[in-house]
Amino acid sequence: MASVFSPLIDELISSLRCLPGVGPKSAQRMVLHLLEHNRDGAARLARSLEQAIDGVGRCQRCRTLTEQPVCGICENPRRDGSVLCVVETPADVVAIEQAGGYQGKYFVLLGRLSPIDGIGPEDIGIDQLVNQLKTGAVSEVILATNPTMEGETTAFYISERAKDLGVTVSRIAHGVPLGGELEFVDGGTLAHAFSSRKAL
Amino acid sequence: MASVFSPLIDELISSLRCLPGVGPKSAQRMVLHLLEHNRDGAARLARSLEQAIDGVGRCQRCRTLTEQPVCGICENPRRDGSVLCVVETPADVVAIEQAGGYQGKYFVLLGRLSPIDGIGPEDIGIDQLVNQLKTGAVSEVILATNPTMEGETTAFYISERAKDLGVTVSRIAHGVPLGGELEFVDGGTLAHAFSSRKAL
Ligand SMILES: [Zn+2]
Ligand SMILES: [Zn+2]
Repeated sequence: MASVFSPLIDELISSLRCLPGVGPKSAQRMVLHLLEHNRDGAARLARSLEQAIDGVGRCQRCRTLTEQPVCGICENPRRDGSVLCVVETPADVVAIEQAGGYQGKYFVLLGRLSPIDGIGPEDIGIDQLVNQLKTGAVSEVILATNPTMEGETTAFYISERAKDLGVTVSRIAHGVPLGGELEFVDGGTLAHAFSSRKAL
Repeated sequence: MASVFSPLIDELISSLRCLPGVGPKSAQRMVLHLLEHNRDGAARLARSLEQAIDGVGRCQRCRTLTEQPVCGICENPRRDGSVLCVVETPADVVAIEQAGGYQGKYFVLLGRLSPIDGIGPEDIGIDQLVNQLKTGAVSEVILATNPTMEGETTAFYISERAKDLGVTVSRIAHGVPLGGELEFVDGGTLAHAFSSRKAL
């Protein structure tokens, strides 16, 4: 069946599908909305995309996304440089920052160890992390990799390396979410919550 | 509170909000996804936006969105030019085409009569529509404006003009959707379904 849309509109609908969570119906709705009601917004979006693609790279220190040589958290003198939280992705940094309360700094692995996929320590910046620990400026490493097989493997590997350097290592707690009802918690989480139970 | 993001990332998150249905959380998720995993897709999206903004205008004949002088439906010789369906927006054309079955052509008002908002017949292309009817090529006008106060007013106005020109006029049916359960249908629709009931 021929498309209802002209080629340029079809192409725009198709290219909006690069956005996570945008299916064919919502892409179509977005395109009609932009072309009918908000061409200025669409032009601004095109410009912002180009500028971010060209400009945004990695923080030299923590490897999160930024267009600056060093990100705002790394260069903030009020953040505690003696505590380093290790996460898998920039999205994890954002989640922890938005939860509030953490005042240390970060190291972003941009992945996790996965021998099956050929991802080793050199692919997730372990050398860079170890060099930072060797300076002696970090007294505690908090491991906040995900509670998956690969995330646990990664946490274990880093904890061994950090302990060798005399750095204290901790792992964030995993279990039933606060406010979560047991009946809606997945089996893996529940099993973990039992095996990690604490004496009262 | 200072943003977790660098300025270019903040600006991209903000400009994604021009997309209908995209709130701050999903804009943030989209940006992290694009910058981490799909810069090629983001570049393609930027290009498609620019090309559509520059290129897409109105069909000279039916006023729907297209970058061609006359849209694919208007210039399709297999479509029945003697039946003209009048709708409010290009999205309505898309909905009817995707439902399938309609083989006539369209006229897109790009709005509806709304005296309160100062929107009169000249703002919704009535002259252009009347000129098409005057050629005698159209034998039936199907009014598919929305079942709102303005949509009904618009349908009534067009039906009077079309009848003056000797053109048959019909209105699409409104009522309980097929497969819709009465308890979930809004009161206005239900009231309309009762007042428009047909003898069996
Ligand atoms: Zn940084
Ligand atoms: Zn057309």
